[in-house]
Amino acid sequence: METYTSIPEDLKLAVLEKVKPTEAERKILTVVQEELAAEVTAAAEKLCVSDIFVKMVGSAARGTWLSGTHDIDVFISFPEETHRRDLEISGMAIAREVAKHAEHAEDRHAEHPYLNIVFKGFDVDLVPCFRVASACQLKSAVDRTPFHNEFVKTHIKGREDDVLLMKQFMRGGGVYGSELRTQGFSGYLTELLIIHYGSFENAVKAACIWRPGQKIDIMQHSEMGHTEPLVIVDPTDPKRNVAAALSLDRFCMFIDHCREFLANPELKFFFSALVLPLEDKELLEKLDSRKSSQLAVVFKTPDVVEDVLYPQLYKMEQAAAALLNEYDFSVIKTGVWSGKPETVIMLELISGTLPNVKKRIGPPVWVREHSEKFKAKYEEAENVFGGYIENGKYVFEIQRKYPTAKGLLEEQLVNCSLGKQVHQSVSEGFEVIEDAEVCRLKDPDFRVFLRKWL
Amino acid sequence: METYTSIPEDLKLAVLEKVKPTEAERKILTVVQEELAAEVTAAAEKLCVSDIFVKMVGSAARGTWLSGTHDIDVFISFPEETHRRDLEISGMAIAREVAKHAEHAEDRHAEHPYLNIVFKGFDVDLVPCFRVASACQLKSAVDRTPFHNEFVKTHIKGREDDVLLMKQFMRGGGVYGSELRTQGFSGYLTELLIIHYGSFENAVKAACIWRPGQKIDIMQHSEMGHTEPLVIVDPTDPKRNVAAALSLDRFCMFIDHCREFLANPELKFFFSALVLPLEDKELLEKLDSRKSSQLAVVFKTPDVVEDVLYPQLYKMEQAAAALLNEYDFSVIKTGVWSGKPETVIMLELISGTLPNVKKRIGPPVWVREHSEKFKAKYEEAENVFGGYIENGKYVFEIQRKYPTAKGLLEEQLVNCSLGKQVHQSVSEGFEVIEDAEVCRLKDPDFRVFLRKWL
Repeated sequence: METYTSIPEDLKLAVLEKVKPTEAERKILTVVQEELAAEVTAAAEKLCVSDIFVKMVGSAARGTWLSGTHDIDVFISFPEETHRRDLEISGMAIAREVAKHAEHAEDRHAEHPYLNIVFKGFDVDLVPCFRVASACQLKSAVDRTPFHNEFVKTHIKGREDDVLLMKQFMRGGGVYGSELRTQGFSGYLTELLIIHYGSFENAVKAACIWRPGQKIDIMQHSEMGHTEPLVIVDPTDPKRNVAAALSLDRFCMFIDHCREFLANPELKFFFSALVLPLEDKELLEKLDSRKSSQLAVVFKTPDVVEDVLYPQLYKMEQAAAALLNEYDFSVIKTGVWSGKPETVIMLELISGTLPNVKKRIGPPVWVREHSEKFKAKYEEAENVFGGYIENGKYVFEIQRKYPTAKGLLEEQLVNCSLGKQVHQSVSEGFEVIEDAEVCRLKDPDFRVFLRKWL
Repeated sequence: METYTSIPEDLKLAVLEKVKPTEAERKILTVVQEELAAEVTAAAEKLCVSDIFVKMVGSAARGTWLSGTHDIDVFISFPEETHRRDLEISGMAIAREVAKHAEHAEDRHAEHPYLNIVFKGFDVDLVPCFRVASACQLKSAVDRTPFHNEFVKTHIKGREDDVLLMKQFMRGGGVYGSELRTQGFSGYLTELLIIHYGSFENAVKAACIWRPGQKIDIMQHSEMGHTEPLVIVDPTDPKRNVAAALSLDRFCMFIDHCREFLANPELKFFFSALVLPLEDKELLEKLDSRKSSQLAVVFKTPDVVEDVLYPQLYKMEQAAAALLNEYDFSVIKTGVWSGKPETVIMLELISGTLPNVKKRIGPPVWVREHSEKFKAKYEEAENVFGGYIENGKYVFEIQRKYPTAKGLLEEQLVNCSLGKQVHQSVSEGFEVIEDAEVCRLKDPDFRVFLRKWL
């Protein structure tokens, strides 16, 4: 529709000024990385573990990290023939040895156990892995990371700034991060977009005309069909879609963000405005102006990591909406907020109450056996208001079982298909609060969520 | 499902006792018919109109009239080659001459003008018609009637009682009458059913397994396809469906009535119980127990015959429901009542109010031109609550134009597609009253309607 001007250089510079690590930041990072490598080597020697390599991976190692982030990924690679159990025991032993000099340490678990430490102010993951010959032959999902690292390092040279611009641009659009909470773009995915399109500007322009099914295969080696909205074939593994975690809505939000930005290239697309918590007074005003019904299902947040929690919360959100729809309530929208100690599923309805009378439409009169059974059932039932024939079908006006959405949720929500930990928490107790009662929930982060919600 | 016992003879006798004309009634009818024939002949002679025949048609002439009805149809038939205008002028002149001895006379109009008179307490139609060679060659719809009369008279002999039983049984089920108000079974249709099935009992048993598309072609001479639920090919005209005016719901009500009756043959299926007007107190109780929204659109009844009025009222009922649905109101059911001076369209809704906020779902984000237009339209609009992307589509929360059903009807009903006279009356003024305000409508017949409605 429009012809876009190029993105002004001074806008890019203004963004980079804020997000590109300074020389001083880089030096500190280099020093810390070297110290960590030395610590790992020393620990391995001390524990008599031979034939391991230390590898710095992740954005810090590739020069594509955003200023202010302090993440370092240290991979401790073992020969491919190492037994899985030996790798776990020796790898964690080395990591724990390194952790003796850390400010904090915490066991974590992906496919393998690994150690997360805070070391000189950096958030460091110490991850044991196998040294496999290629990413197609991996023994564990983390074994891929060193291959990603190599691919990016050899292809990104000179375009690190474009990666930084893109990462920050995605942050500004709320689509950066591949965790199951965000369902957006991972760092590696962002880097591949820059490698494929050559620059931030080209990538943004290209995305404006993306459609679901968009496929990018840098190595032209795809071996699989994929159904996700965006398919970026992993250059190190022809079977894998790097964008598998990207949801349709994040995909579309990114397209929209690119179009809006090109039509009017401004700093605000990189740095979203601060959202203030919604005050009680504003909340009441908004409820009064919308005149819809707001329901908040409140329960104790299960004590699990976000990648376990959020899929369960999204499932619950869908289940609650399906339950309400099944019982004739019209859902306008649903939302999820989770904090400590509480989690809230928000549901906005056309109305939280329905009449007592409910119309039950039966089979056509001429489908004799079924229609006679239907008629007999409701003629004998209690609390039937009346019956008639409409459009050739028996119709009975019966008593609605759940005339309020609150009553329905209170009685039936625990019977919905919920994830394990969420089901457990909900079973232990939950509350459904309505409309102005939502003022009771004071958490400032929830109130930020509410401002976007209403 | 069940095996039915035959209909008890004493039940049939009990019905016939009430509906079969007595010997005295028959004698009076014969005398009056003969007097009318003589009057017509004398009038024709007086007016020097030659070559006309007088024909008594209708149920009175066929011995299939229900006791207590006082209808006589007198057809004055002219030679086929008569000019239409001559027929109208001479026919009406003869009728008016006869009317000089009547208690009351009124001009009426079908395809031709005819005269309705009250003569010795009987309701008499004096109808000029053409004497055509067969019902297939008719010059006017009324020319058919004498052929119907002949066919029934030669085939019904000995089964007149079965016709009376069936007519009364249909009355009891609320499906007797082919006027556009009732959309049920005509007298001729009832007679054909008895001729085809041989008896009341056989017809009732057969109807239990009718389905839409049921076809009866006594003469095996059908020349047309028909789409109506019941097709009874006219024995005197292979192109015509005698049951064309029967609605799907009356068709199904009759099937249902037959099944219920055979399962439990009782007098109540012939004589429905008297329904009392609903009192204010009962009305309020019912409103409170249903908790739905009741809307009554009240306007002056147009001064036209029922066959013109009711199709327009049914059209208005549909139009009002369609309007409400278009603006997101959920209609439970609709109804029509018409009296003097007022007509009421009743509408029962899930709720008469909706929230201010309305969700407008746009095209998918990747359908660029359409989705950008959609977004631009709503982003610039006033009173937009917010926008987001859901399931790949732009969604905007906009201000609902009509948050109350009453307001919507008041503003938009006159713009609906309405029949001529109803549109005129509604344009001159109407009122929408809600829930307990319905108590204001006091007409006892309306209150009888309300008892069935609620």
